[in-house]
Amino acid sequence: MTLSWVDGQPAAGLPIHDRALAYGDGLFETIKVVRGRPELFDRHLQRLTLGCERLAIPCDIDLLSSQLRAFSAELGGGVAKLIVSRGEGKRGYAPPIPCQPRTVMTGSPLPHYPKAHAEQGVRLFPCTTRLAEQPILAGLKHLNRLEQVLARAEWQDPVFADGLMRDTSGRVIEGVFSNLFIVESNLLVTPSLERSGVAGVMRAEVLEQARHAGVPTRIGDLSLEQLYHADEVFLCNSLYGIWPVRQLDARVWPVGALTRKLQRLVADLSSDT
Amino acid sequence: MTLSWVDGQPAAGLPIHDRALAYGDGLFETIKVVRGRPELFDRHLQRLTLGCERLAIPCDIDLLSSQLRAFSAELGGGVAKLIVSRGEGKRGYAPPIPCQPRTVMTGSPLPHYPKAHAEQGVRLFPCTTRLAEQPILAGLKHLNRLEQVLARAEWQDPVFADGLMRDTSGRVIEGVFSNLFIVESNLLVTPSLERSGVAGVMRAEVLEQARHAGVPTRIGDLSLEQLYHADEVFLCNSLYGIWPVRQLDARVWPVGALTRKLQRLVADLSSDT
Repeated sequence: MTLSWVDGQPAAGLPIHDRALAYGDGLFETIKVVRGRPELFDRHLQRLTLGCERLAIPCDIDLLSSQLRAFSAELGGGVAKLIVSRGEGKRGYAPPIPCQPRTVMTGSPLPHYPKAHAEQGVRLFPCTTRLAEQPILAGLKHLNRLEQVLARAEWQDPVFADGLMRDTSGRVIEGVFSNLFIVESNLLVTPSLERSGVAGVMRAEVLEQARHAGVPTRIGDLSLEQLYHADEVFLCNSLYGIWPVRQLDARVWPVGALTRKLQRLVADLSSDT
Repeated sequence: MTLSWVDGQPAAGLPIHDRALAYGDGLFETIKVVRGRPELFDRHLQRLTLGCERLAIPCDIDLLSSQLRAFSAELGGGVAKLIVSRGEGKRGYAPPIPCQPRTVMTGSPLPHYPKAHAEQGVRLFPCTTRLAEQPILAGLKHLNRLEQVLARAEWQDPVFADGLMRDTSGRVIEGVFSNLFIVESNLLVTPSLERSGVAGVMRAEVLEQARHAGVPTRIGDLSLEQLYHADEVFLCNSLYGIWPVRQLDARVWPVGALTRKLQRLVADLSSDT
């Protein structure tokens, strides 16, 4: 049986009037748990807090934090997925006042990614599904994820470890389940997520590690041409750390020195809490 | 107790691994039920079928149709809300193959809208939340509805019956829970929903009734300036039919003759099935 809690209590189901089901009215976090402790926990809580503010979901972050620690302790190792929903409501978009947010936590084993992904790098599928530009939701890990579902459905061939997503204007934004970085003449660049995309906790960690290591960084718009001309390309997320990108379409990159350096720096994250 | 079915059986809860909860991976319909029969049923099924095709959800529409008739018969009168989810899945965006779509039906009473809304017209709140442009999802009544949730949260004052939503480029698109029409020199115009918006079943019905009545119609882009200069403005949805729009910002419109005519034509829809 998989471990699952609703509002801090073991439960396998959710009332059908929950607004996460009706409208995707909520947020989530996918957290790596090692030896009973959630990794990059402060960063996850920070993004969740920002999301709750932007969506005006009055979530008790302290309570949630202690529940998530208890859940992680029980899970031991693997992935803790947290959903914060606005809670139940009547039919209709109007958020209930007051609302009673609800939390759902589910545990699963850590995915078995091939070692070659981290060692030799991955190939990216060029997704045709584009990310819509929506500044008020950009950066958040909210529950409206049909774009990612459709993008991920574009390929079955496991030769592609992830897919490249661009926005409706053509800018390079991210992987389907990762953030993207390029190295351009020793400058570390990652796309701005002001209009679309999910601001991953590992992206924030990579940026901080780079700055600590004295690597110049830039967050800004990134064209497909810039990506093609990059010296190094890599993906990151909170479960696997960093994967070098070796190929997109006909373009092949070597695994670069900065990629390797950052990979080492984030490989042995101990819990930051 | 409210009436609710999951996969055709009475149930009040849903397994927490459902993808509608995780990603808003599904569609919905809000159907008016009168004397045990769903109104505009063919149009609802048609939009749902299109949505299932676009999202590649292999829903058995015939089975769903018979379940929805049975549900409506038991509900008697009110609103039947149908959710079609892609079903359960493991963690991760990849749609499960094969997938087992799930249906959720919930009943609620018909809302008590003030009679004045239909008779004297309504005032629109000018929402600042914009609709992102996403052609692959435009027109569908999918479960990713955070934009509507945020837009609806912009006002509490009941003097506003609905809110006006524009897209990120500024075009006029729809109400938060309705479609919008204008009359411009005897031409009936409604915004194109190729980039954003929900293609309401009542919108389709109004267009058809207008064409039958010999009223020239146009579907196209609509600017705020065009809206301000319109002779008549109205909203429609499947629960209330047509509401004339009397005011937006400082602009006040009369209730026009074509609005009244179309209002009569759709007021007494018998079940079309």
